[in-house]
Amino acid sequence: MTGNKAKNKLGKQTLVFPNKPIIASGGAIVGVKEGQGPLGKWFDTVLEEDTFGEKTWEKSESKMLKEAVKMAITRGGKAESEIEAILTGDLLNQLMSSAFMARDMQIPFIGLYGACSTMAESLLVGSVLIDGEYGNNIIAGASSHYCTAERQFRMPLEHGNQRPPSAQWTATAAGAILLAANDNQTANEPKTLIVDNSTANPITEKTVCITHGTFGKIIDTGLKDVNQMGAAMAPAFVDTVLNHLEDTGRKFSDYDMILSGDLGHIGKQIAMDLLADAGIPVKDLVNCYDDCGAMIYEKEQDTHAGGSGCGCSASVFTGYIYKRMKKGELKRVLLISTGALLSTISPGQGESIPGIAHAVCIETC
Amino acid sequence: MTGNKAKNKLGKQTLVFPNKPIIASGGAIVGVKEGQGPLGKWFDTVLEEDTFGEKTWEKSESKMLKEAVKMAITRGGKAESEIEAILTGDLLNQLMSSAFMARDMQIPFIGLYGACSTMAESLLVGSVLIDGEYGNNIIAGASSHYCTAERQFRMPLEHGNQRPPSAQWTATAAGAILLAANDNQTANEPKTLIVDNSTANPITEKTVCITHGTFGKIIDTGLKDVNQMGAAMAPAFVDTVLNHLEDTGRKFSDYDMILSGDLGHIGKQIAMDLLADAGIPVKDLVNCYDDCGAMIYEKEQDTHAGGSGCGCSASVFTGYIYKRMKKGELKRVLLISTGALLSTISPGQGESIPGIAHAVCIETC
Repeated sequence: MTGNKAKNKLGKQTLVFPNKPIIASGGAIVGVKEGQGPLGKWFDTVLEEDTFGEKTWEKSESKMLKEAVKMAITRGGKAESEIEAILTGDLLNQLMSSAFMARDMQIPFIGLYGACSTMAESLLVGSVLIDGEYGNNIIAGASSHYCTAERQFRMPLEHGNQRPPSAQWTATAAGAILLAANDNQTANEPKTLIVDNSTANPITEKTVCITHGTFGKIIDTGLKDVNQMGAAMAPAFVDTVLNHLEDTGRKFSDYDMILSGDLGHIGKQIAMDLLADAGIPVKDLVNCYDDCGAMIYEKEQDTHAGGSGCGCSASVFTGYIYKRMKKGELKRVLLISTGALLSTISPGQGESIPGIAHAVCIETC
Repeated sequence: MTGNKAKNKLGKQTLVFPNKPIIASGGAIVGVKEGQGPLGKWFDTVLEEDTFGEKTWEKSESKMLKEAVKMAITRGGKAESEIEAILTGDLLNQLMSSAFMARDMQIPFIGLYGACSTMAESLLVGSVLIDGEYGNNIIAGASSHYCTAERQFRMPLEHGNQRPPSAQWTATAAGAILLAANDNQTANEPKTLIVDNSTANPITEKTVCITHGTFGKIIDTGLKDVNQMGAAMAPAFVDTVLNHLEDTGRKFSDYDMILSGDLGHIGKQIAMDLLADAGIPVKDLVNCYDDCGAMIYEKEQDTHAGGSGCGCSASVFTGYIYKRMKKGELKRVLLISTGALLSTISPGQGESIPGIAHAVCIETC
């Protein structure tokens, strides 16, 4: 009764997008600390204070996500009425940030949960909708907030508890991307814009599109320390990378950058060790691999093991990597957002931490 | 830069599936109370006790979902290695039931959150993946458990608090569907099987497929009473129904059954009133409309306003409606699972309850 004919499937886990959905625009908004980090100048908006004028942290986070979504829509030259669906998620119980963001928009809403892997998950599902010609304009996004995450998963801030050196800092950040159908007539027409303020030279903007995606399996090595998120997620990242490379027949160095979501400094080192063990040349790891959680804060910012949270890879990709791709500095990037699928109560029931990682291949085209 | 050519989009919110993904098989498992209800004999498995042999309710729910998924895979004649993705969700914080179910399966996992709308959401996204030829075999499912939901959203059971008459009873139930690529050569070949034990007559099994889907917008009328979920979700259900009918150019009576997820008795009545106000003939509502939450329990079972929970529409559709379709008793069904997107803390922050409803059109083909 069932056929076996999926023409847009490649290997075991990878999807191909022959229509190459384009990233038409993006919006990245971050909190004060993230704005003070090394990528601060790249983000579209840096908050003056992390409440964003709201009475609760959850409402602040939801407002950040809404601003990122609206920014992506406006910058893409679209009206809200032209957007066919919003695909977002966050870390909060029942996706509170996303649900209340979407409540204020008259746009169909598809809630996703992949913990910190959500940005890649939303880009992947969104790309399927565009590539399969089920829509022309789809929003993919994700958010997190240090204060909502601490309260929910760890301790209320007022408790002032000490964080162990392996703990990561949940980024106060949101990113949203407008995915759009690729009109081949115009997609390859370079546009001119001024990006580089230092030289004031006009730069030719490249079109950025999504060509492949790899949905990840859950990998759980039995780790139970909730202050070791990088270690819990690194094996899932490595599994998805290796499956993606096998499915596509590519090498690690075929990418200008392979970017993990938020393994942080410790998880990044574990991932590099595991990838080296799997035969990836160390020079390729040094040249092509980085981690959003390791990139978003300076060492001096006292975040211990680096950044985390759905908003980490969402804002670093949208605010920084995507803009570098538009400038032509990066031609092919594999974004692999990584998630730790523990719940607020699963550690208390003796459960270990399931890790997951989804990948999207983004190229200039 | 962006085109406007999505050929599989119909009207404002509806997707068309020209390849007609088929429902190859399903698995529905319910708790003791649900087994004693009017649909008890239809469910594939009825638990002897709701712990399912586990030490925590959350683990019981996760095990139920895993059993439903495995049942769908086995009944579809597939091995786990042939399944390209599992798309599920549940009501628990961070999708605990789904994450720990998927941890034990070596299959890519896509977590979805739409509260009680999750079954239709997963069928919709799963149908997109199959119809767009990104996969051949995809699992869509959802679960809920009375004891996990009460503990998380309301009171621990030991508290013995009194439920108001408008409260709904979260179904202890899980349902999973195996969606498969439609091989046109064989899809229309009727198969013979014995379903009807009362007559022992062989019945020709129909092929059941998914032809359309409509992603819903969030509708929030400002209602804040967390014991009035049916009232909170009914307007979203009506909005999605009306948009689906407008997009497809169909009438309410073009469906043998239009099935809301879990509005319960009160929400069902509100939905009927709103649909009648919108011009749907009352006789059509009487003939074609029902609600999974109103169907799953007997009035005498003391559930007050009826059933709810992601597992409600998941099990009623998978266990009952799908089987009636295979028997040819229903030819065209619109399943509209309905969700209340409040969180565990949003009511405490003064927020009203956002409602959402996603629709899938299921037909014999």
